[in-house]
Amino acid sequence: MSKETLLVLDADPPPRLDRLTGRARILHGDESTLARQLPLADVLLVWDFTSDAVRRAWPGDGPRPRWVHTASAGVDHLMCPELIASDTVVTNARGIFDLPIAEYVSGLVIAMAKDLPGTLELQRQRRWRHRETLRVAGSRAVVVGSGPIGREIARLLKALGVVTALVGRTARPGVHGAHELTPLLSRADWVVCAAPLTDATRGMFDAAAFAAMPASARFINVGRGPLVVEDALVAALRNGRIAGAALDVFGEEPLPPRSPLWDVPGLIVSPHMSGDTVGWRDELGAQFVGLYEIWAAGDPLPNVVDKKRGYVPMHD
Amino acid sequence: MSKETLLVLDADPPPRLDRLTGRARILHGDESTLARQLPLADVLLVWDFTSDAVRRAWPGDGPRPRWVHTASAGVDHLMCPELIASDTVVTNARGIFDLPIAEYVSGLVIAMAKDLPGTLELQRQRRWRHRETLRVAGSRAVVVGSGPIGREIARLLKALGVVTALVGRTARPGVHGAHELTPLLSRADWVVCAAPLTDATRGMFDAAAFAAMPASARFINVGRGPLVVEDALVAALRNGRIAGAALDVFGEEPLPPRSPLWDVPGLIVSPHMSGDTVGWRDELGAQFVGLYEIWAAGDPLPNVVDKKRGYVPMHD
Repeated sequence: MSKETLLVLDADPPPRLDRLTGRARILHGDESTLARQLPLADVLLVWDFTSDAVRRAWPGDGPRPRWVHTASAGVDHLMCPELIASDTVVTNARGIFDLPIAEYVSGLVIAMAKDLPGTLELQRQRRWRHRETLRVAGSRAVVVGSGPIGREIARLLKALGVVTALVGRTARPGVHGAHELTPLLSRADWVVCAAPLTDATRGMFDAAAFAAMPASARFINVGRGPLVVEDALVAALRNGRIAGAALDVFGEEPLPPRSPLWDVPGLIVSPHMSGDTVGWRDELGAQFVGLYEIWAAGDPLPNVVDKKRGYVPMHD
Repeated sequence: MSKETLLVLDADPPPRLDRLTGRARILHGDESTLARQLPLADVLLVWDFTSDAVRRAWPGDGPRPRWVHTASAGVDHLMCPELIASDTVVTNARGIFDLPIAEYVSGLVIAMAKDLPGTLELQRQRRWRHRETLRVAGSRAVVVGSGPIGREIARLLKALGVVTALVGRTARPGVHGAHELTPLLSRADWVVCAAPLTDATRGMFDAAAFAAMPASARFINVGRGPLVVEDALVAALRNGRIAGAALDVFGEEPLPPRSPLWDVPGLIVSPHMSGDTVGWRDELGAQFVGLYEIWAAGDPLPNVVDKKRGYVPMHD
């Protein structure tokens, strides 16, 4: 088999790719070179998943990569009508982020139940103020997004004794359908968003969704920023419509210093890091190399995205 | 059976005690009245467990309560040679705090692994700074204290995938003996102190104990303040001998505003609240009423403290 051309979209070369040296012709590109390089590439590795350059540079009917891999769980930064319509295969980093994100969400749940942010603020003020806190076990969570990340979040919350409902697009065993969301929200202590960003989910956490939650509810978003109408969340927090929130993802990232989100009472802001444990870049690099070997052998790739839906469908 | 005299040590009357109205003669006392009232009481309920008034006021050979109950897990505030030598039965609030404290510790573990304190500080500064964090699953914890609280902490940490060793006074199935502590500390990512405060445990976390831990270790104390040599902990944190710590209990409580502990880098200070979830006072009151009914019926009390050891021994 002749050497294929692998185009890597990133300023810094990803780790572990040296294993492909001599086996593929590797090009490195950035936003400025992508449109010129895409027609030359057989395979595109989107390492910088914060960029929407692929969507902007994707060739129409011309020569184009037959396979695009993104080193991320979400594929919202890639998708455009031309890519969806093409026969190019898209794969994602399924599996790498599941447990880290589930741990992160569990930590936020307990930290909010035990008011750790309040404790740290009082510590800064050298004030000893005993408070009563919440039990986690027996509380109720709704996890929106029934892919591997959402399911891992649900597993870990259940291990903590949280009564957890998982919500997906369509109902199946162990998963509630989207039409059941509103009644579930109305009984939730914790609402966790781990959904893919698609046309169907964009802005799904809007004023009506926050209004459906009880005043004691706390909301956590580890999916994508545009799943949430940020102004509606801010209003819900300021009006006491819900009790607290934590956002790891935002409509604009990095969140600009002037954003009003930084200092909304009851809102925890973190810099899109919920899945990024030590060694994650190595894991992502090794995962791509493994997929490349499957591709080079001509075998069917795993982690194939349903491009119309915008995520990897479940097969169980 | 004639009415017994129940003396309650607390400024505020505990909840749920109204159920005993008409069945016991209830006196309320405080530190100033205790010495005078103790000889009159059949039963003493120590509601305010922060006071060492009982130890100071306990009668020698004279008339004294036949039963003392403390609304706390620890009994260190009560114990004195005269009480230990007497035939007075001492019971504690075994069971009430187990799950809340285990949740609290689990929350601290995840919050430290994911650097939630750093995230909150950066948020205050409106700074977006991505960091790589630690996986909790697969990390190693040593939980010192093999009573119900320590065992519940170990259960919950194991549910999070933490490889957890439990250490008690003597080895038994599932529990390491105290002589195994040092080698266990040397491999620990997390060291959790949930031991009773006794002559054998006072100051056990000293410079040598912190020196035995790896530089990546983080220490959590939810037992009693004097289990830790606070100066040695501060030195270990300032010298980078260990990576972080969280104290919920202190040698002096409330921690005075001038204490140097408030602003040691890497140290989380909380106001002795790890076990105090909403409704805890009701639970403690109801637990005492239940014990009182057993006592009044002449049946053997559960939760009986081994006064020489200073805790309720395990029977399994």
